[in-house]
Amino acid sequence: MKDTKKTGGLAGIVAGRSAICTVGTGHGLNYRGYDIYDLAQNATFEEVAYLLTKGELPKPKELAQYKQELILARSLPEALKTVLKTLPKNSNPMDIMRTACSTLGCLEQETSDFSNQAEIITRLLGIFPSILLYWHHYHINGKEIDTNSTQDSIGGYFLEKLHGKAPNELWIKAMHVSLILYAEHEFNASTFAARIAASTLSDIYSAITAAIGVLRGPLHGGANEAAMELISEFSSPENATKGIFEKLENKAKIMGFGHRVYVSNDPRNIVIKEWSRKLADDCKNTTIFPISEAIEKVMWDEKKLFPNLDFYSASTYHFMGIPTAYFTPIFIMSRTAGWAAHVVEQRGDNKLIRPNSEYIGPDNRAYVALNER
Amino acid sequence: MKDTKKTGGLAGIVAGRSAICTVGTGHGLNYRGYDIYDLAQNATFEEVAYLLTKGELPKPKELAQYKQELILARSLPEALKTVLKTLPKNSNPMDIMRTACSTLGCLEQETSDFSNQAEIITRLLGIFPSILLYWHHYHINGKEIDTNSTQDSIGGYFLEKLHGKAPNELWIKAMHVSLILYAEHEFNASTFAARIAASTLSDIYSAITAAIGVLRGPLHGGANEAAMELISEFSSPENATKGIFEKLENKAKIMGFGHRVYVSNDPRNIVIKEWSRKLADDCKNTTIFPISEAIEKVMWDEKKLFPNLDFYSASTYHFMGIPTAYFTPIFIMSRTAGWAAHVVEQRGDNKLIRPNSEYIGPDNRAYVALNER
Repeated sequence: MKDTKKTGGLAGIVAGRSAICTVGTGHGLNYRGYDIYDLAQNATFEEVAYLLTKGELPKPKELAQYKQELILARSLPEALKTVLKTLPKNSNPMDIMRTACSTLGCLEQETSDFSNQAEIITRLLGIFPSILLYWHHYHINGKEIDTNSTQDSIGGYFLEKLHGKAPNELWIKAMHVSLILYAEHEFNASTFAARIAASTLSDIYSAITAAIGVLRGPLHGGANEAAMELISEFSSPENATKGIFEKLENKAKIMGFGHRVYVSNDPRNIVIKEWSRKLADDCKNTTIFPISEAIEKVMWDEKKLFPNLDFYSASTYHFMGIPTAYFTPIFIMSRTAGWAAHVVEQRGDNKLIRPNSEYIGPDNRAYVALNER
Repeated sequence: MKDTKKTGGLAGIVAGRSAICTVGTGHGLNYRGYDIYDLAQNATFEEVAYLLTKGELPKPKELAQYKQELILARSLPEALKTVLKTLPKNSNPMDIMRTACSTLGCLEQETSDFSNQAEIITRLLGIFPSILLYWHHYHINGKEIDTNSTQDSIGGYFLEKLHGKAPNELWIKAMHVSLILYAEHEFNASTFAARIAASTLSDIYSAITAAIGVLRGPLHGGANEAAMELISEFSSPENATKGIFEKLENKAKIMGFGHRVYVSNDPRNIVIKEWSRKLADDCKNTTIFPISEAIEKVMWDEKKLFPNLDFYSASTYHFMGIPTAYFTPIFIMSRTAGWAAHVVEQRGDNKLIRPNSEYIGPDNRAYVALNER
């Protein structure tokens, strides 16, 4: 048995093999061999979802067919609508997504031979924006959204249904970039949980539901929301600099910085930071981007911590009018591609994932009858 | 990085420390230092749930108070009833349990400082039988069950609500034993998934929902149902012997045998096998127990594989008139104690659980524009 001190949180432990994504080559992150910068600059999210879940970039006809399937996958079954109406307005939106995914697993079951897994993956990628925004509009303004749309992309559809009007091209492109950057990251916590579910030969809804629950935590997906809350505390860069110094003195946890697998920078940050700058210019917001940079500077100067993908994703979403509570649900809409790819891969060469623990509890002790305690 | 061949499925890898349970000392399994045989013979499940989730066996007054809390925790919120009515009759009962747990996380949220975690743990232990049997009776015979009961134990309450009449003392005791044996088993797959969720600082409903989804798989909790299906294929011991030989020749997977962490026997099997024999006598069933023993003999003679807890749990439940599809949901009712104990322990000394993968995918390759593919 290995020394547990070194294996705490499984840091640095290779828990399996994967052909999906690699960290640390090229610009620092590849999806199935393609550099993340090339994908973010040139591809749409739908191409990347296809690449991740099916292994290769689609040809034009394949992409057209896939986009059509994703559009058809947006519709909400009546029973799911009933559940979404029943879940309260004050719910955490991540709990809504988790419950809706689990509900869909009752309504549109996976077969025990997994022969319909590909359809279910497409279904989940298509339906997640509908789930969030049906629940949102029903509880916020008593309206049931229509899932028909003029938008042929997941990001465009999400923005159209959120705001009730077609988004501009810049925003659609920003959503593609953001969804691409969030789509996959090897054995992160939520993905590893999905693989554990797959390793017991459970169904794919169980795997994705588990992953959503894991992503929900502020040390994982929840970090982009925490970053926005932090940025929103400050009214100017000077004020932010002072405030972050104070937080560091008080040993407060600053979200959106550092990363378990990156040492000196998060390659995804360079891409999303430029998009945050671009959208700030577009909407003429002159405070949030400089405040973010001021926070970044203090964190680097004082702690040598770099912003990760979550930090500038926060302002990027904010500039598009997306409520902070929906930042992590958007992460789901993207990462479902990665989760699903890992479920399929795990199933292809399965071994039950079941580690051991080191026992540090009481020595053997004799049972004492209730009336003698 | 370690050699992945050795670490496949994290077998033999120590993924963390735990004071809850140890495998391999005494009779082979201890909960917080108490031998599983002592607990199964002398304790009620409620005492063991208290021991696991709070660290010590309860004194008489503490146990009385705890049982009262568990009884109060049986009631179903109206919104949850609506969801259970909406989920279809042909759902997998594990999907019902997963969805209901997730739904309760929307209705009765955990606070972000986790200060109500103890109440939620008791709530889940109390409500799970109500969830399953409300859904069952609503869809099977159009009746909404009343969660009032004469039974003061979780096992007794489950049997009373299932059958619509108070169970006898032998059955109540059998349920205590079975729930005690299933309650905890260190870093099994579902528990480890719950710890991963806790390690991102997600809420306890996410952790338990994830665990249910992982338990659902036939390589984990689903094995007790698969064992019953196997036993039910045969009409006599001779017929079973012949049938198992054939299955082994055809390399069919036989569920309910062997175990990742036990080498020569599962200590829990010795206990549950005696209960299966006792209940067979009680209900004068003269075929199922001898058939089970015939299967056991072939598996040992031919493969040196021993029955694990799941194998004789199957017939034990069957003799009490429990539908096979509810065997794994009962596992939830028990293992929730262990899952919850691990969530609390993980939170007490947290580090994000995030392993690495070994990349075996394509080398770096240049992006090709859509119209050039």
